[in-house]
Amino acid sequence: MCGFVAIIGSPQAAAEVHMGLRALQHRGQDSAGIAEFDQRFRVHRGLGMVPTAIDAATLALFESSRAVIGHVRYPTRGSGHIEDAQPFLANPPGIILAHNGNLTNVEELAQKLADKSFRMLSYCDAEPLLGTLASKMLAARPFAHRTQDLITAVKELLGEVRGGYTAVCGMQLDGKPTLAVFRDPKGLRPCTIGRRGNAWMAASESVALDPLTFEEHFTPKPGELVILREGEEPQRFELHNLGHTPCIFEKIYFARPDANMAGRSVYEGRMAFGRTLADEFSEKGLEGDVVIPIPDTSRPAAQAFAEHLGIPYREGFIKNRYSGRTFIMPDAATRARALRLKLNPIRSVFKDKRVILFDDSIVRGATIARISEMVRDLDATEIHLAIHSPPVANPCFYGIDMSTVAELFAARFMHQGYPGKAGLRAAEKEMAKALKIDSLTYLSVEGLDQAWGGPRCAACFDGKYPAEIRAEDRLAIAADRRKAADRNTSETQF
Amino acid sequence: MCGFVAIIGSPQAAAEVHMGLRALQHRGQDSAGIAEFDQRFRVHRGLGMVPTAIDAATLALFESSRAVIGHVRYPTRGSGHIEDAQPFLANPPGIILAHNGNLTNVEELAQKLADKSFRMLSYCDAEPLLGTLASKMLAARPFAHRTQDLITAVKELLGEVRGGYTAVCGMQLDGKPTLAVFRDPKGLRPCTIGRRGNAWMAASESVALDPLTFEEHFTPKPGELVILREGEEPQRFELHNLGHTPCIFEKIYFARPDANMAGRSVYEGRMAFGRTLADEFSEKGLEGDVVIPIPDTSRPAAQAFAEHLGIPYREGFIKNRYSGRTFIMPDAATRARALRLKLNPIRSVFKDKRVILFDDSIVRGATIARISEMVRDLDATEIHLAIHSPPVANPCFYGIDMSTVAELFAARFMHQGYPGKAGLRAAEKEMAKALKIDSLTYLSVEGLDQAWGGPRCAACFDGKYPAEIRAEDRLAIAADRRKAADRNTSETQF
Amino acid sequence: MCGFVAIIGSPQAAAEVHMGLRALQHRGQDSAGIAEFDQRFRVHRGLGMVPTAIDAATLALFESSRAVIGHVRYPTRGSGHIEDAQPFLANPPGIILAHNGNLTNVEELAQKLADKSFRMLSYCDAEPLLGTLASKMLAARPFAHRTQDLITAVKELLGEVRGGYTAVCGMQLDGKPTLAVFRDPKGLRPCTIGRRGNAWMAASESVALDPLTFEEHFTPKPGELVILREGEEPQRFELHNLGHTPCIFEKIYFARPDANMAGRSVYEGRMAFGRTLADEFSEKGLEGDVVIPIPDTSRPAAQAFAEHLGIPYREGFIKNRYSGRTFIMPDAATRARALRLKLNPIRSVFKDKRVILFDDSIVRGATIARISEMVRDLDATEIHLAIHSPPVANPCFYGIDMSTVAELFAARFMHQGYPGKAGLRAAEKEMAKALKIDSLTYLSVEGLDQAWGGPRCAACFDGKYPAEIRAEDRLAIAADRRKAADRNTSETQF
Amino acid sequence: MCGFVAIIGSPQAAAEVHMGLRALQHRGQDSAGIAEFDQRFRVHRGLGMVPTAIDAATLALFESSRAVIGHVRYPTRGSGHIEDAQPFLANPPGIILAHNGNLTNVEELAQKLADKSFRMLSYCDAEPLLGTLASKMLAARPFAHRTQDLITAVKELLGEVRGGYTAVCGMQLDGKPTLAVFRDPKGLRPCTIGRRGNAWMAASESVALDPLTFEEHFTPKPGELVILREGEEPQRFELHNLGHTPCIFEKIYFARPDANMAGRSVYEGRMAFGRTLADEFSEKGLEGDVVIPIPDTSRPAAQAFAEHLGIPYREGFIKNRYSGRTFIMPDAATRARALRLKLNPIRSVFKDKRVILFDDSIVRGATIARISEMVRDLDATEIHLAIHSPPVANPCFYGIDMSTVAELFAARFMHQGYPGKAGLRAAEKEMAKALKIDSLTYLSVEGLDQAWGGPRCAACFDGKYPAEIRAEDRLAIAADRRKAADRNTSETQF
Repeated sequence: MCGFVAIIGSPQAAAEVHMGLRALQHRGQDSAGIAEFDQRFRVHRGLGMVPTAIDAATLALFESSRAVIGHVRYPTRGSGHIEDAQPFLANPPGIILAHNGNLTNVEELAQKLADKSFRMLSYCDAEPLLGTLASKMLAARPFAHRTQDLITAVKELLGEVRGGYTAVCGMQLDGKPTLAVFRDPKGLRPCTIGRRGNAWMAASESVALDPLTFEEHFTPKPGELVILREGEEPQRFELHNLGHTPCIFEKIYFARPDANMAGRSVYEGRMAFGRTLADEFSEKGLEGDVVIPIPDTSRPAAQAFAEHLGIPYREGFIKNRYSGRTFIMPDAATRARALRLKLNPIRSVFKDKRVILFDDSIVRGATIARISEMVRDLDATEIHLAIHSPPVANPCFYGIDMSTVAELFAARFMHQGYPGKAGLRAAEKEMAKALKIDSLTYLSVEGLDQAWGGPRCAACFDGKYPAEIRAEDRLAIAADRRKAADRNTSETQF
Repeated sequence: MCGFVAIIGSPQAAAEVHMGLRALQHRGQDSAGIAEFDQRFRVHRGLGMVPTAIDAATLALFESSRAVIGHVRYPTRGSGHIEDAQPFLANPPGIILAHNGNLTNVEELAQKLADKSFRMLSYCDAEPLLGTLASKMLAARPFAHRTQDLITAVKELLGEVRGGYTAVCGMQLDGKPTLAVFRDPKGLRPCTIGRRGNAWMAASESVALDPLTFEEHFTPKPGELVILREGEEPQRFELHNLGHTPCIFEKIYFARPDANMAGRSVYEGRMAFGRTLADEFSEKGLEGDVVIPIPDTSRPAAQAFAEHLGIPYREGFIKNRYSGRTFIMPDAATRARALRLKLNPIRSVFKDKRVILFDDSIVRGATIARISEMVRDLDATEIHLAIHSPPVANPCFYGIDMSTVAELFAARFMHQGYPGKAGLRAAEKEMAKALKIDSLTYLSVEGLDQAWGGPRCAACFDGKYPAEIRAEDRLAIAADRRKAADRNTSETQF
Repeated sequence: MCGFVAIIGSPQAAAEVHMGLRALQHRGQDSAGIAEFDQRFRVHRGLGMVPTAIDAATLALFESSRAVIGHVRYPTRGSGHIEDAQPFLANPPGIILAHNGNLTNVEELAQKLADKSFRMLSYCDAEPLLGTLASKMLAARPFAHRTQDLITAVKELLGEVRGGYTAVCGMQLDGKPTLAVFRDPKGLRPCTIGRRGNAWMAASESVALDPLTFEEHFTPKPGELVILREGEEPQRFELHNLGHTPCIFEKIYFARPDANMAGRSVYEGRMAFGRTLADEFSEKGLEGDVVIPIPDTSRPAAQAFAEHLGIPYREGFIKNRYSGRTFIMPDAATRARALRLKLNPIRSVFKDKRVILFDDSIVRGATIARISEMVRDLDATEIHLAIHSPPVANPCFYGIDMSTVAELFAARFMHQGYPGKAGLRAAEKEMAKALKIDSLTYLSVEGLDQAWGGPRCAACFDGKYPAEIRAEDRLAIAADRRKAADRNTSETQF
Repeated sequence: MCGFVAIIGSPQAAAEVHMGLRALQHRGQDSAGIAEFDQRFRVHRGLGMVPTAIDAATLALFESSRAVIGHVRYPTRGSGHIEDAQPFLANPPGIILAHNGNLTNVEELAQKLADKSFRMLSYCDAEPLLGTLASKMLAARPFAHRTQDLITAVKELLGEVRGGYTAVCGMQLDGKPTLAVFRDPKGLRPCTIGRRGNAWMAASESVALDPLTFEEHFTPKPGELVILREGEEPQRFELHNLGHTPCIFEKIYFARPDANMAGRSVYEGRMAFGRTLADEFSEKGLEGDVVIPIPDTSRPAAQAFAEHLGIPYREGFIKNRYSGRTFIMPDAATRARALRLKLNPIRSVFKDKRVILFDDSIVRGATIARISEMVRDLDATEIHLAIHSPPVANPCFYGIDMSTVAELFAARFMHQGYPGKAGLRAAEKEMAKALKIDSLTYLSVEGLDQAWGGPRCAACFDGKYPAEIRAEDRLAIAADRRKAADRNTSETQF
């Protein structure tokens, strides 16, 4: 996950990057960082949400810079320690980098860099990405830090670094502050470029552009390098395009509904998921009296679903706006109560009704199991569950933290890739039984493609990984995740 | 505003009070406090949200207590400094007190107490309330700290202390830890009493009971004193009941939708407001293509409104879940952008539509003005505004912070109390003009009473104050608010 | 130990109290507090040294007050938690109190107060002292908070509260801010009153007066109550004088050398101890080549000792000015090294010399044992140890933290009180053997009295306790100390 | 100033470096840092004293490293911000560096590095030193990070980097953790190398070795590079020795008295300064009744001075052990009092005496002026001032922060270098008059050389700068100091 914001050419670049990061806070709440690469270079990183990690006094240090990069981090790889926060700096040759995504050959890259005396200071995969780029830049002869050297370096890098990633880099190139953006050859992770007069902005989602009145200008292609400078037109270099397969899960869950992705509205997409699911729900012959979204993500799709079926839509769960991750709970009994602290039901909405619970996806299944249990006590006559995405049965290696296969709810019922629509309907019966509810309906992969057309990575649903993942990569990633899990056993997903 | 939680008779009273406070966090985010009155007395108060103000190490100090009071504070009177946080302790005679509400004769009470050598350490009105109670307890002869002395003391107090308040007090009475709850003679501020086996709980809203599996037991009457002890039935003393007029604004805006108030569901109430307003909207001959709530409070009413009129309901604004109060913004231009950081519109929902914006209330009007301006840029063909409460034209003296008359939006158009439904319709035209929108429709006071029947305080709408407010009280309160405003000029309402 | 500073009648009372507390920082480094009792009452307490415990922002809150009390705390009784920091407030009736000393009948007092509903919030003995005073003030009839009531209350209190204590109290009396100071009937703990124009100051040592240009005015008598108000002459009431026996250990170790105590210079006193000890050292037929003080306290006496004997004086140990209490030490070997981090010897000063180490006193003996061991490795030909006080063989119950008898070094060699000079000389031989040094010479009690004449409490040396200590008091104190020791096992004395 | 500690080959390297830094705390209190370069590289820096800047939790992160560098910083160049704290890391090629001293051609170096894309992140001159080294290492062909490359790089560096500096560097060389130490060609700043079994330690002063039981092994020569590895003998390379002129001011003031410098005891040196000054004092025909040191530095010399003249030595000033740098003082009057808070006189020592005040040096003269004024009020019959070093009349460019010429006390009276002993005696009369005292006697430069023989840098006294300082260097340094002074106007020297 993670999110980045970069601005070049604005007199208030730092304050605006700070605002942009707040618009992307949903992409990562563990740490945040900011860096400048204009007159001077400076990096600051802190733990916590944006206002905590980058406080007013810190932000003031950056106020004279017109070229700033910021990042919010959700720890896919790395431990959530301050040292794993982004951006990173390689000095020499003076390159700042932040990225969104996940590399799948970190060990291999780190090994190569050790020979070149680039030291890893963290467990964050932004470091091998930066180290690879920095080494190539330093190796350029004559050593002059030219645009051409960067093009050569990134071209090589795209052939060596595997995984899904969009990186923003700040440096002085040809003597000018330069913002460089590049995407992996499959364009797995999102990116948008905006313009406001002479200033340019790159961000993980368009929602960071909106409050700053940057207009969406274009979406970089897979394997493309974009060079942005104040007052100049973007220079675009398509270096290693292997065909665009953007992550579909961004549209289902991760991106904000008000975002546009490659020109399409996520909100409208979710409405389409809801309508298509409504058709599949009806095809199964199912009915209900009320549609109740599990907040917040599923609202637009649930609304469209209800409207399409002509069933009332009710906000039967109230989500506590103030509940954060950390609970102080003395024992298991109290911990069990914590769900109601986060999500309190309104009994009258459920009572004596055939209830259709509606959610965006099921990953580990712990929360939906607890919610189902809670709803059973509310005197609903039937409980149906509708999910506006297909079953998550395969791990993501490109930047979405979905745990290992062993932990995935759907993987317990569907062993070998996506079984087709009919196979799905069969599996749903077993799943509903496990959850002790009357029915469960996922959106089929067919329905997904009908609702949001075009090429996409849906590996978590269909097990087809568009960017190469070698066997050794899988092993290394699995080992990493076990370590990270050990470090974070106290955290529970709700 | 403010909220309290008190538990007696649970082995995990402190941890549960902490969870209860988190369920009531919406009632106050400036400070929080906790106190025990079992084997030993201890008070802790801190600034910020509950997890910050009362951290795990602090909470651990209270872990052996079975009798605990907690409080979250929104600074109605007082400065937001730590010294103004609740609960307070008077020692001797050993009484802990927290309350929700606002006293209207603070100066008079403070004057009386000075003669008795009770020193005010803060600007919080909980202190004169506590000082009055403590003085009366200390004056009892023989001095023995008996239940009877408390009854006498509270009875006198209810005749002397003016305003709206519900207080929870912890003390040793007849040698036992005792939780005492009392309400002002008009029952203006909410309170509910819950039971779980031998344990008792008192809270500002029922939503604090739910996650802790306390069952709602009863709602204390106006002017009633309730005495709660572990394993004993409640003792109830109706000491000074002047007729119940509970605050209607709790139902419109302040309480959580999943709360019950005096046995009625706030959620259902809001749905009723929405339906009644739909009728009034139609009566005016108005029409629209889409109903768009301004999140979060107005959702249930907007949903009912849309359904009642058969118009599509769309979540056209996305609220940033992570935006807090504090923004770091370098200049006015950036500050203007901050609204979109908190509330970003989805253009496609508005474009070429006759839009009905829907909100719960208008207080100062600054936010709705800015939202209207933003919507005008989204290519809607018409903008209509529907508000599911009547115009706020009079200040609240009983605990809701609504600023002075001068700052109230509606007061600029409606000078002398509520003008009746016809007068309201006339005023709405002027207001719509001021906001540069096509129409504005409030719920009439008549409609309000139709939707949520029974006696109530609606002074902010109709100017009729059920609990006496003397002229000198008004002057003192106004002076106080000016001082508080001076202290808080940097904060802006969105 | 502990120290207090109080000022009434200065426009900068708080800033000056803060400076005074810094001058008394040697009397307590665990916590500090400040309180005002002029227009308003306010108390602030914090952990750590004065600048940390009372920072600039906090101090600014007190800036308009002309009547302020401050305190630095060394935890004799109590746990070193913030709740044990002084000053304390009883409200009602509005009395602030801080004290220096130790009560010996805390349990008895606490029991009495529980009947009066005064709740102990801490383990600090200032609370029962304050509670006793507050209860008596509240019981006065008519209740009018008059000077006469205070006189009566303190007179009763002096008969009930046992131990050594000097207390400063702030309150409104006869409608005026009033600073009251009272001492226990034996005057065990120090106190001095200073004047500067219309302003008055009370402090534990005169060194707090010096930087603020207050002139020493008088020393209150044992059992005396002094009432100080801005612009008025002190009112003095001798209520319960049982004969002055001030603590001699203040002069030996605890007070700063630049202090005056009851008109006599501590520095000159220490010089006298050194000269008298020189005579006793010679009488034993001992000789040496160099006198080396163990810094810092023993310097003046060591200088006088060397000069008197005509032996060179050398600063052979360099004390690290920056070493605080807390060391981060991974294992025992490293911990052993910590002594040299605090106290590093200069080898050339010791080499081939008959060395006379010089210190003020030996309490538990752990440090001197380690120093002796260190010196043995420095190639001195002989090691003699001279101590400018008699052996500490009995615990102090009046406010000096000297641990239990079991832990006292001297008590292992001298069981029943002071054995007379001859007995002392005999015991010294055993002690020197235990320390593996050539000789040990204490100042005899006879020498002590010769050097600093007049009545005194020297109970730690001679076992004669001037203020009554009942058997039950001893038991309660011993229990307390065990508890405190449990809480503090990680701290080591150097 | 500043101080460093580095250890390689100890299983507790980090904890021991931490202890070593505490022994060197007197060399810098503004910030501290620690870095490891064993299995992994990690740097931590913090503001404040060692225990604050590097707390226990931070230290624990380094616990598995056997190769650690630490630093305490006094801000000669740079602003006292965290970014200026040392050590620094260049990555690639993975070099950690800390140093003690001052470079005089920072601008020139920074300019050269900009061409190589090494970015300065701070105002600290450790960065250009590190950048120069890193650039040279990266330029080695073949790139293999070999010992030979380091030798070449340091040899070149010593010819390019001007000023006084001792640097410690950590890196992986020939595949092994390697600690490298090098000194400027004149050996201006101190350094000592210690051994404990297989482990090696480098430190600014020997006092850091003592508590860790490292034995002094050797002192690196000017322009020497020393390579230290666990279990190997040191490799020493004399690369650029221009003749040793170590800083004499270290012996006078800066070093701890228990330190050895190049095999000689600082303590004995200070005694010699005192005796020589005694002779010069007598030659002038001056007499006195008592010698009173101004603590702490001048004690050993004052003691020798008094003994040599047969005059009593008295500790007439008591220094507050707890006064730090920061005072909270409301106005000028209070600020004036602050001196007595730091340094309180004992009146009886001064009264009716011909007093000889004794100090180590006079820099700006503000403190001695205030002390003289204070002593005049103490009824001394005469005031003589003896200073155990010559007049400081020239700025230091090699690492001692002595302000600009304009601020130096002596420079107001002695314009062109050192005027010889006779000239000095004449100038002293004017100085004494300015201070309103009876006489002032400095140690002459001749006396200085007699007391501590051998070559030395005494540029601050005689204006002869042994290491080249170009005109442009002087200008750049002066500009820097003005900037730093602007940043620090609020701090006053006592």
